[in-house]
Amino acid sequence: MEIPVIRDVLEESNARARENRAIFERHGVFVVNVMSSPGSGKTTLLQKTIPILKERAISCAVIEGDVSSTLDSERLAPLGIPVVQANTEPFGGDCHVGSHFVHAALKYLDLPSIEILFIENIGNLVCPAEFYLGEHRKVMMLSLTEGEDKPLKYPLMFRECQACLLSKMDLAPHLDANLDLLKSNIQKVNGAIHVLPISAKTGEGLMAWLDWLIAEMSNQP
Amino acid sequence: MEIPVIRDVLEESNARARENRAIFERHGVFVVNVMSSPGSGKTTLLQKTIPILKERAISCAVIEGDVSSTLDSERLAPLGIPVVQANTEPFGGDCHVGSHFVHAALKYLDLPSIEILFIENIGNLVCPAEFYLGEHRKVMMLSLTEGEDKPLKYPLMFRECQACLLSKMDLAPHLDANLDLLKSNIQKVNGAIHVLPISAKTGEGLMAWLDWLIAEMSNQP
Repeated sequence: MEIPVIRDVLEESNARARENRAIFERHGVFVVNVMSSPGSGKTTLLQKTIPILKERAISCAVIEGDVSSTLDSERLAPLGIPVVQANTEPFGGDCHVGSHFVHAALKYLDLPSIEILFIENIGNLVCPAEFYLGEHRKVMMLSLTEGEDKPLKYPLMFRECQACLLSKMDLAPHLDANLDLLKSNIQKVNGAIHVLPISAKTGEGLMAWLDWLIAEMSNQP
Repeated sequence: MEIPVIRDVLEESNARARENRAIFERHGVFVVNVMSSPGSGKTTLLQKTIPILKERAISCAVIEGDVSSTLDSERLAPLGIPVVQANTEPFGGDCHVGSHFVHAALKYLDLPSIEILFIENIGNLVCPAEFYLGEHRKVMMLSLTEGEDKPLKYPLMFRECQACLLSKMDLAPHLDANLDLLKSNIQKVNGAIHVLPISAKTGEGLMAWLDWLIAEMSNQP
């Protein structure tokens, strides 16, 4: 008697991610997986980034991951770009965007017309770091309000990402935050990560982020 | 031929949680599971709460959950109370404290001498809400910096908790936060949850939190 063996879940996930990646390559889409804790500013970053990319005639789309609600998609809709909402709640409230969600979202997108596809992951500093979706770059955000110890307490996210945007820099005068210590803790965990302080409110760092993003798009994979 | 069936993982987890709860009852320990996103202020809350409980001759202990590091335990050690660090990283970087971790931590604690045991969960607004640990109360924190939409986007955490502490209220003048909208969104998801605005910096709300906690301890289960 043959006993059926369920294939390794992570292997299943990675196989689907590789399929996604092949589709992206075929259509020349550069894909960025944006991750952070809840409320660090992922949607706000996209609200600030996409209009500048549009001005530079770079076409964008977003896959918006959330456990529940279409609130973030509604914030992005006025930008006039394609947005697909992927809600994990009907599937048990998954704590991360899975490669199968990305795959399912692709059929709603006209890929040949898209140059950059952002995947806004679910707000979670732990689980999303574990799953490859087929993206070219992983970018994380950390709000200055979250504390200098986060790289040491949640190291995988910092290890996996190529860039770390330090958001809400405008709050610095009102916090006891030690930016040097934070940067030093990030470097301890990942010496190669590109650290970019930003503020959506004042505009600090946004152009440096855009420059980095466009350079990476030119230098893929 | 008998085919072995692996028992449901959640049932296994719940069974261990019920064992924990029986142990807590036997020794008269009131247990509070404290959850939030990373950096919302769980450890700071304990740093402010425990000295007041000590003044009132209420004995405390903490099980400190983190993926990695003993940083939070080191912050609590000067309070002179028993602290057990549970790191999930050697076990694959679990994204929540499991009931088996709590069970393993109990052998390091002199339970008959403890009146309140805090479990500081891993910073994560999604997964910890799914797991019962044997606690009497689930308490969550949400930093005012995280945004008014969080109850709608991460509803399970808000549904599972009996109290929601709104932290970092001192930052309110520097944020575009709408406290009424936030409270209304919380009520939409859980009309019964006790909402308490607090600030560790100014002391706002700390006494109301202590009063709630002590009343709940008297009114268990």
